[in-house]
Amino acid sequence: MIAIDIGGTKLAAGLVDPDGVVTARRATPTPAGDAEAVWPALAGLLDELVALGRPVGGAGIASAAPMDLRAGTVSPVNIPGWRDFPLVARVAQRLGGLPVRLAGDAVCMALAEHHHGAGRGSGCLLGMVVSTGVGGGFVFDGKPHLGALGNAGHVGHVVLDPAGPECACGARGCAEAIASGPSMVRWAVERGWRPADAARADAAALAADARSGDEVALAAFQRSGAAVAHLITVCVALCEVDRVVIGGGVAQAWDLLEPAITATLRTWAGLDFLRRVELRPAELGADAGLVGAAALLAGGSPLRAVPVRATTSA
Amino acid sequence: MIAIDIGGTKLAAGLVDPDGVVTARRATPTPAGDAEAVWPALAGLLDELVALGRPVGGAGIASAAPMDLRAGTVSPVNIPGWRDFPLVARVAQRLGGLPVRLAGDAVCMALAEHHHGAGRGSGCLLGMVVSTGVGGGFVFDGKPHLGALGNAGHVGHVVLDPAGPECACGARGCAEAIASGPSMVRWAVERGWRPADAARADAAALAADARSGDEVALAAFQRSGAAVAHLITVCVALCEVDRVVIGGGVAQAWDLLEPAITATLRTWAGLDFLRRVELRPAELGADAGLVGAAALLAGGSPLRAVPVRATTSA
Repeated sequence: MIAIDIGGTKLAAGLVDPDGVVTARRATPTPAGDAEAVWPALAGLLDELVALGRPVGGAGIASAAPMDLRAGTVSPVNIPGWRDFPLVARVAQRLGGLPVRLAGDAVCMALAEHHHGAGRGSGCLLGMVVSTGVGGGFVFDGKPHLGALGNAGHVGHVVLDPAGPECACGARGCAEAIASGPSMVRWAVERGWRPADAARADAAALAADARSGDEVALAAFQRSGAAVAHLITVCVALCEVDRVVIGGGVAQAWDLLEPAITATLRTWAGLDFLRRVELRPAELGADAGLVGAAALLAGGSPLRAVPVRATTSA
Repeated sequence: MIAIDIGGTKLAAGLVDPDGVVTARRATPTPAGDAEAVWPALAGLLDELVALGRPVGGAGIASAAPMDLRAGTVSPVNIPGWRDFPLVARVAQRLGGLPVRLAGDAVCMALAEHHHGAGRGSGCLLGMVVSTGVGGGFVFDGKPHLGALGNAGHVGHVVLDPAGPECACGARGCAEAIASGPSMVRWAVERGWRPADAARADAAALAADARSGDEVALAAFQRSGAAVAHLITVCVALCEVDRVVIGGGVAQAWDLLEPAITATLRTWAGLDFLRRVELRPAELGADAGLVGAAALLAGGSPLRAVPVRATTSA
């Protein structure tokens, strides 16, 4: 299967086998500029994969949100040149009419973890990414929950605290404005924390200092963990997820984040069943987007070779 | 189809035809006391329906929460005598082995509105009941989202405001502690509102006074509507529901509640897609539980007559 992962900083594409193993991969920085500046970069990656000559059954796309699945278009916040860009049609055309499926990148992460990672065996899974942003996706009975137009799983823009900090989206107190890496760093810096290396004021530096006992750094993890705990109880109350798999840069400090989450779970969970949820760190890392994108074509189509184009221009 | 609706104040059962029309109904107050005090009352209703001699294909149960679908048991908060009560097995046994399906009462309401009411045509529906409590249920692609054990849709216990009023569940600032009828009345009374008839301090009296221009009563609806708006944006962010159907006593004052919801939707919805949701008042009223319970058996089983028992005792 051809898998595509569309992000604001990187475009990636790969070949993924039915066991979720990435057998070839190509990536390039996301070009700035208008729609027709971005597309050739992706088209070039696809052409390189096709040139390998391996038969494929279709293509799955994990894309930054938002999107419109009915129209097959994407408008990623971090790719200003793509607004209602007809990504599904373009990819299908480039691949000689192969079937193409599209979903959000965090939905694909959740699907990948469900099929091949820490979400195996869960009937109602939430996959969450706590990184520069906070995103998520649900897998119910083994299938991704896409929502009306493919935008389900926007856990980062659940308003957790009406009196909380302003979010880039325009609302106040969104999960992302509290729990993301940059939000943690901002909060810690406001309280006097300074990283050892001034050029590396990130969640990893904050985690290192928290492990050395820095009180502000520890409090930043506790605050982020409390917000994630609140968010998890919201997801359990609404969807009764039985497991939450958390990935992303902040979750790499699982030794700090996990206790901070469980410490406050009861604060948000009055009813017994809200506490009945398993937490697991993600297993698949940076490949989750590609692996999940390929999994969108579960069942799949007959494999066939895609003819190589004479040119890689659009 | 035999339909059963289990509530803390009333047990109801009926026959529902494939068009969602209730063709026979029986009800009785929910007895106090232990498990074996409650069951005979329900068994009696079933026996009365069976005695009508009409062929049925199965039974659907809408029950107050929580429950455990895997075990087929219910533990309704408002029926203290039933804890892990094996309702599915008892009903199946009473009906001579007919297939039995179980779901939450608000999930059944949502399913009924989806199939036969204001939710028709929605791909991702939230049905919400704003009444003495606040409950809900999701219908995705025409099917109820049940969650791991049947407890999905607990919108009333989403913590909307960490600094909000205490909830009966033990948490703070739950939707139910702000937006339910009793919560609205409590808030208004604390601010000096008095109903014309002291014995009728309820949401209907509050609505009547709000329509006459009483400022505290109006503010109570605005506050409840703002909480419902917040809750709706949470549900759209997580599940991308495209329509919300709202029923229950408070929603009967749709002329007051609907503008209060839409007035604040933007406060909670920074991202465009969070505002893209239709609001509709429920159409099915008190029958929604029975109609939705019957709809749990969609597709159904061959109809057959259930033999009448010689005795109505357990």
